[in-house]
Amino acid sequence: MTDRRPLKIKIQLFCGDEIAMGPGKADLLDAIAEHGSISAAGKSMGMSYSRAWGLVDVMNRCWNDPLVETSPGSHHGGGARVTEFGRTVLGEYRALLIRLESAADAGEMATLRGALLPSPRPSRKG
Amino acid sequence: MTDRRPLKIKIQLFCGDEIAMGPGKADLLDAIAEHGSISAAGKSMGMSYSRAWGLVDVMNRCWNDPLVETSPGSHHGGGARVTEFGRTVLGEYRALLIRLESAADAGEMATLRGALLPSPRPSRKG
Repeated sequence: MTDRRPLKIKIQLFCGDEIAMGPGKADLLDAIAEHGSISAAGKSMGMSYSRAWGLVDVMNRCWNDPLVETSPGSHHGGGARVTEFGRTVLGEYRALLIRLESAADAGEMATLRGALLPSPRPSRKG
Repeated sequence: MTDRRPLKIKIQLFCGDEIAMGPGKADLLDAIAEHGSISAAGKSMGMSYSRAWGLVDVMNRCWNDPLVETSPGSHHGGGARVTEFGRTVLGEYRALLIRLESAADAGEMATLRGALLPSPRPSRKG
């Protein structure tokens, strides 16, 4: 028994072939804002430092201005913060998602919801 | 240089904790309709037979009626077809996606597009 909503929407924004913003990068920005460092933010998400740094590097190369600013020594645990520009991008991304979730909740979704079971039937394979 | 659109939307429909429909399952339904068998459809997508059969099994347990019907012996390469109900679900799912892509193309997306570079800056890491 879960209270999961039947609809989940994921939005990815591309810059060429790179993902400039998506669910994981948005969560990483939130974690950097909370923890004040890329290392601690990555750790809080179960992510290696190099993985977290790589995601920040991609984000910072995909937009007009950096989304994250690091202070000297940040490669070794120094501080990082989400810029005002970064907060704007994150806010617009999240607002777009909420608007689409709301827009989805009608039309075809009414038909689909009516055809969808609340939980799966048991597998015949046992 | 790619012509990739900057926005990609993924829609997942849940039945309890199972994914009743998503991009991979929708493509598998198209492939079953084209190839007339689960085995051939899975192979055309680079998917093992057991993986393809598992996805069909989940779909068939998540909706009011089966999306895919198999003929006897289908476990050993027999035929499969997408039911009329399955085609309806697939059509509504794809229509929802197209409607959301269209709905997204305004508002916040205008701001985000204006802030997004056409291609990433070079990495400082070289």
